[in-house]
Amino acid sequence: MDKKYVIGIDLGGTNTVFGIVDANGNIIAQNSIKTQKHKDNVNLYIDELCNELTALIDQTGGKNAIKGIGIGAPNGNYYTGNIEFAPNLPWQHVLPLSKMITEKIHLPCKITNDANAAAIGEMTYGIAKGMKNFILITLGTGVGSGIVINGKVVYGHDGFAGELGHTIAIHDGRPCPCGRCGCLETYTSATGVVRTAIEFLSKSKEDSLLRAIPSNRLESKDVYDAAVKGDKIALDIFNYTGTILGQSIANFVAFSAPEAVILFGGLTKAGEFLLKPTRIAMEKDMLRLWSNKIKLLVSSLKESNAAVLGASALGWECEE
Amino acid sequence: MDKKYVIGIDLGGTNTVFGIVDANGNIIAQNSIKTQKHKDNVNLYIDELCNELTALIDQTGGKNAIKGIGIGAPNGNYYTGNIEFAPNLPWQHVLPLSKMITEKIHLPCKITNDANAAAIGEMTYGIAKGMKNFILITLGTGVGSGIVINGKVVYGHDGFAGELGHTIAIHDGRPCPCGRCGCLETYTSATGVVRTAIEFLSKSKEDSLLRAIPSNRLESKDVYDAAVKGDKIALDIFNYTGTILGQSIANFVAFSAPEAVILFGGLTKAGEFLLKPTRIAMEKDMLRLWSNKIKLLVSSLKESNAAVLGASALGWECEE
Repeated sequence: MDKKYVIGIDLGGTNTVFGIVDANGNIIAQNSIKTQKHKDNVNLYIDELCNELTALIDQTGGKNAIKGIGIGAPNGNYYTGNIEFAPNLPWQHVLPLSKMITEKIHLPCKITNDANAAAIGEMTYGIAKGMKNFILITLGTGVGSGIVINGKVVYGHDGFAGELGHTIAIHDGRPCPCGRCGCLETYTSATGVVRTAIEFLSKSKEDSLLRAIPSNRLESKDVYDAAVKGDKIALDIFNYTGTILGQSIANFVAFSAPEAVILFGGLTKAGEFLLKPTRIAMEKDMLRLWSNKIKLLVSSLKESNAAVLGASALGWECEE
Repeated sequence: MDKKYVIGIDLGGTNTVFGIVDANGNIIAQNSIKTQKHKDNVNLYIDELCNELTALIDQTGGKNAIKGIGIGAPNGNYYTGNIEFAPNLPWQHVLPLSKMITEKIHLPCKITNDANAAAIGEMTYGIAKGMKNFILITLGTGVGSGIVINGKVVYGHDGFAGELGHTIAIHDGRPCPCGRCGCLETYTSATGVVRTAIEFLSKSKEDSLLRAIPSNRLESKDVYDAAVKGDKIALDIFNYTGTILGQSIANFVAFSAPEAVILFGGLTKAGEFLLKPTRIAMEKDMLRLWSNKIKLLVSSLKESNAAVLGASALGWECEE
């Protein structure tokens, strides 16, 4: 029988979402479980996940139609199939997730981190279709990246390549949860935008719609809403964020000379408020050889589907 | 007959050096011509080069023993076989060098820039033998780089990937010949070391052996000689240079998670004066996941041979 589907699993800190996907990127069935329900016993988590997966598979034509399972998970290591030392997940240090699932479901399984999965997703179903060299940057709670060179995700010597959110953008800059200072993530994530907002509001006396929101409830969405209304401080916040992002992108381009840099994730909803200063800084800081040649794009995948689609794309790489 | 040799051509601004190389990296015959002798007529340059190459080939067993020709040249584009807009060469903007040589000599020919050639050289004959993922950084008059991922040099979408010498290390930093400011090259090249020396000497009143040398004659070698004698300012210069280099390397590691970073070129003669601060800054700035895991190495190829060897290594990639 033809293997016309793959399974994508997006393992997040809160929810584990999974779906069955066809070659055109349609999610034909989807479900989810709570990641933290079995904090103390990963075997119970695997049991629940595999039971739900099996139910979904049975609904959609059975196991013979499935080419493989792809998983996007924090600190997922493509080489080993393990999740290794993921700070936001409740289980032991090294979890052989891929092996555990294959043992239960008897389908081949590959794993990588969520940003790499997003890059494969864009290449398989999204805006990077047909591209061989691009860099995807996820701008969410944190900043991640998936780098594609010659049509393949870069995993590096140890499986952990593409940590562009943890390149140091500003020396002796903001403290980062990773223990160092000045990481790109501390400026250009949704969290970074909020930090910038709090900083700008405290440093300036200018009037701003953002002053009406308690700082412990301020979200990047509020900054966007204020920017839409022409709020000067909100616009400054996006200019600052975009400038740092663009400066970093200019350096990334010098590394792999990609066809495009693709932005992905919640913060991209800010649209031109973010993209314009990013583009200006990127062009200003980029080696002249690349002036006006590197596309700056935004993911075309629907956000609610993107994580499962990205993970599922890895399923097509599975060998039977 | 067995193809037991390759030809390497190192096309520099002053000299074009070429040699016939065996599979163990022995240069069995070598010669050179002046690159600038036929400034106004590239055809005469090609004629002279090909005549000399043919003489060398005839001496060493004839064309049938040669697998191919590899060229390392500034702005050499692997994809097109052209030298494109090389600022230090006298000829027109786009020079189809590879094609011109093959038409004369009837041997397949590949071209890349000198830093990429050096990386292939290290992988074929040198310290990177057996490595699949490493970054080579050339520290000479300028700073170049060759990036190897999964055993292949990264050329990028346009053939010009790996310009790490033109990543911006310090925003609004020193003016760079490329037209921007703060490029790594302006700090960690031999020229950069001299700029640092002049800066440090003018800012400090401390005694230094370097004060005896007129600033327009000062070379990085002088700084090394002074450091050997314990000169405080000379040591500070290397600390500063190594710190900036190490900080940049930490960011490069986040991109491709290499097994090793290999330093190459004149400035590496400074040995631990340069390596120690580089290592310290790299470890300090690197994501903890890589702490003490990324090797910092120095090229093992003899400097006088390295450029020809590197170029020749590309010859093994030629198909007959």
